[in-house]
Amino acid sequence: MQEAYKELKFRLAELSHIGAATSLMGWDQQVNMPPGGAEVRGKQMATLAKIGHEKFIDKKVGELLEQLKPMEEEKGYESVEGSVIRLTRRNYNKAVKVPPEFTARAQKAESESFDVWIKARPANDFKRVQPYLQTNFDLSKEYADFFPGYEHPLDPLIDGYEYGMKAAKIREIFSELRKELVPVVESILSQEPEYFSFMKKIFPGDQQIAFGESIIKEFGYDFNRGRQDMAPHPFTQGTSIGDVRITTRVHEDNFSSAMFSTFHEGGHAMYEQGCDTVFEGTPVRGGTSLGVHESQSRLWENVIGRSMPFWKHNYPRLKQHFPEQLADISLDKFYRGINRVERSLIRVEADEVTYNLHVMMRFAFECDVLDGKLAVEELPEAWKDRMESDIGIRPADDKDGVLQDIHWYSGIIGYFQCYTLGNIMCSQFYDAALKAHPEITDEIGQGKYDTLHNWLKEKIYQHGHRYTANELLKNITGDELTIKPYMNYIKTKYGELYDLL
Amino acid sequence: MQEAYKELKFRLAELSHIGAATSLMGWDQQVNMPPGGAEVRGKQMATLAKIGHEKFIDKKVGELLEQLKPMEEEKGYESVEGSVIRLTRRNYNKAVKVPPEFTARAQKAESESFDVWIKARPANDFKRVQPYLQTNFDLSKEYADFFPGYEHPLDPLIDGYEYGMKAAKIREIFSELRKELVPVVESILSQEPEYFSFMKKIFPGDQQIAFGESIIKEFGYDFNRGRQDMAPHPFTQGTSIGDVRITTRVHEDNFSSAMFSTFHEGGHAMYEQGCDTVFEGTPVRGGTSLGVHESQSRLWENVIGRSMPFWKHNYPRLKQHFPEQLADISLDKFYRGINRVERSLIRVEADEVTYNLHVMMRFAFECDVLDGKLAVEELPEAWKDRMESDIGIRPADDKDGVLQDIHWYSGIIGYFQCYTLGNIMCSQFYDAALKAHPEITDEIGQGKYDTLHNWLKEKIYQHGHRYTANELLKNITGDELTIKPYMNYIKTKYGELYDLL
Repeated sequence: MQEAYKELKFRLAELSHIGAATSLMGWDQQVNMPPGGAEVRGKQMATLAKIGHEKFIDKKVGELLEQLKPMEEEKGYESVEGSVIRLTRRNYNKAVKVPPEFTARAQKAESESFDVWIKARPANDFKRVQPYLQTNFDLSKEYADFFPGYEHPLDPLIDGYEYGMKAAKIREIFSELRKELVPVVESILSQEPEYFSFMKKIFPGDQQIAFGESIIKEFGYDFNRGRQDMAPHPFTQGTSIGDVRITTRVHEDNFSSAMFSTFHEGGHAMYEQGCDTVFEGTPVRGGTSLGVHESQSRLWENVIGRSMPFWKHNYPRLKQHFPEQLADISLDKFYRGINRVERSLIRVEADEVTYNLHVMMRFAFECDVLDGKLAVEELPEAWKDRMESDIGIRPADDKDGVLQDIHWYSGIIGYFQCYTLGNIMCSQFYDAALKAHPEITDEIGQGKYDTLHNWLKEKIYQHGHRYTANELLKNITGDELTIKPYMNYIKTKYGELYDLL
Repeated sequence: MQEAYKELKFRLAELSHIGAATSLMGWDQQVNMPPGGAEVRGKQMATLAKIGHEKFIDKKVGELLEQLKPMEEEKGYESVEGSVIRLTRRNYNKAVKVPPEFTARAQKAESESFDVWIKARPANDFKRVQPYLQTNFDLSKEYADFFPGYEHPLDPLIDGYEYGMKAAKIREIFSELRKELVPVVESILSQEPEYFSFMKKIFPGDQQIAFGESIIKEFGYDFNRGRQDMAPHPFTQGTSIGDVRITTRVHEDNFSSAMFSTFHEGGHAMYEQGCDTVFEGTPVRGGTSLGVHESQSRLWENVIGRSMPFWKHNYPRLKQHFPEQLADISLDKFYRGINRVERSLIRVEADEVTYNLHVMMRFAFECDVLDGKLAVEELPEAWKDRMESDIGIRPADDKDGVLQDIHWYSGIIGYFQCYTLGNIMCSQFYDAALKAHPEITDEIGQGKYDTLHNWLKEKIYQHGHRYTANELLKNITGDELTIKPYMNYIKTKYGELYDLL
């Protein structure tokens, strides 16, 4: 039995090394790769994906899993061995349904699509990337069909990001949230908007980066096991627990963009850096679901990073970096500026309140395209219409509309819901943290994050995939997924900011 | 037959993608990787090396090669297909002799050894890295023994870098060269040395990089298919013909270091960028041997980059980058400065004349360690003694002695001869270029490199591994390897510089 487990671990380590190579190639593609490398890079990544897939679905893996059933039971659900075997089995049962040829084809298509999008977006040229997007949706449907019996074709895709979650459940919770959120959005947006001219001033890029990095270092991001680089789209990419990198991009006339993206990706990265090293080289490494992952990035970006206690402590420091730009700006004005709610076009720049409407729209479009209710070529107009009706602003072009997100153009479909699920779970987790350690709020006001970071590490980070999102929620909060803490957070914070109470 | 060739090409492409992943991981390890990634990175690279090896020695590859014999003959030696099949067979016949387990073990050891060396060198701590170096030499011997019947254990190692070359032949040509070179070195070093204080002035790093990059762009290095980064040791790494990267490092008090390393690596990279794209994804891509590779880097670094015509044109431009540092320095003084011959400790900083003595010493040590005539632990003292007797200067510590080169500590043994072989072949090739296009010297004086670059592309670059080093020499110069053109170059250039004539 021990031999079989050792053999399984050896094979899993190999798979994780192949996965790490693909991760590094993907990171490099966005951070360093010269344009001439693009064509072959797609093929390289496709080959690695195919080899990884082939090695994983080797029938020897199935045999080992069969042999290891007694060990899994004996060691128990929460044990390291139990978790490794369970996770492997879960992934294996899915992977054997997908032909390696498909994996390679999809990987190649995604890589090519990404390369076209990178040029099509600045050129505002949806037509150019449309056939690639069509292919990506077609591949998603093809993938879903490897799992017949689904309620909705998006379900098998969602399952890869949010284990056990279904489109129907998301619809239900989104509709509940929408009902609560829309009146808040409406009453805020009906007010005369306050103007924050300092938000548009020029903030030198190097100072933006210096400030953001000094903050996430204090949060607990370990630069000895990571780094931050520039990329067109911020993301986190880990190749091992010892190497979890983040990216950002700088807009000198919008300082909040890089800063909050650094806090956000820092949150993702701390989650992956905090995994118990016993899970290195196994599928248990990483974050358990994208929703939980987002709960961690949003915690540091929004709940901490846009809070009054945080800025009470850090605003003087920010002013040292930008003495002229912030000279006449009071803490209170600054706080209102970084938390202003407005009609905006770009999801990643949207405020906390309208953000979820951006997400719901994307999720609805994915459902509709896969249902055949909406054609890919209709997306640009549908996008504009929905933005107008939901947020009250119509994009002038596709660059700030349907072309804005990297996801679909990288073949990532069935993913967007995680951002809103993350918001919801974030509030559930944070309420639990405050209940256990009411001193956290005061500590944040003193620039101390140890209590919170350690609590997160103990309750969430270290476990990797050991517990599902639902199990984590149950273990930590005693509750299922519920929007109450999140709506409470929104209503309290924005109720004060906009005198809604 | 066409089917078999297609199948072979498919497999070779997969192998090249795996190789590219390993290359990228190696590049990243030296350029970007945070320290925390080191441990797992070694394992990741070992896994990829093992998978690549296993896939290559698959008996299906042997069968395909057998099937393709008629095609190879029919298409002919110089054809694309003939070259792909021949190179694959040559590599296959070697690879099947080496167990994949060995490849993985060696890869892992090399990676670990590199990580220890990176710390041991600045700490001047040979003892710390000695066991790793021992392992690397032991692994080399183990590798050699997979090829019984060698004349010298270094032969199978050399063969991987310089196909068909043997230690005995290198000894012969080195001894011939030594006989000619030592009197030149002695008569130069017996002269009162001229002092070049400007060489030690502070040259801002960003300006060093800007100048170096602008020059290699003119040489013909394509930044759309490459990039330059900082690394502890300059190197060139390609993952495809469309992505060939170089690295350098900057010493602000030694401007010539980064500049000539950029010219040097630019030469390597142009060779790889110039390969016919028909060879992408096949073992024919790349440079045919390390000697030929070095001939190309040294051509741009030394023969062009340290020549009077080059600097007649470019010195005014360099002065624009460094107006204060070079204010009172005449072109003639500058030219003598960058070509000064002196007793120096560091191979990569050594002048053209003494350089080969550094190489011969390393080659002799490799022979002696593998022959059992010298123990690894004796290397530090042997190094110091030989430096004293050969170059007339004794290193004060191991940092500037046995620890200075990355090669042995990365498991690269049987490699050093290529630098001197490169010098020799470089002069042979360049003489042929001048014979075909006597206008090249004038063109260099006008900052034009097209004629030379195109000639190199046509005669050398495009062929990748199609021809061996010897075949290239024969085809291009009509000659075998001979030191005459090189000694002629040295005697002419340094005869003038040091009034030896």
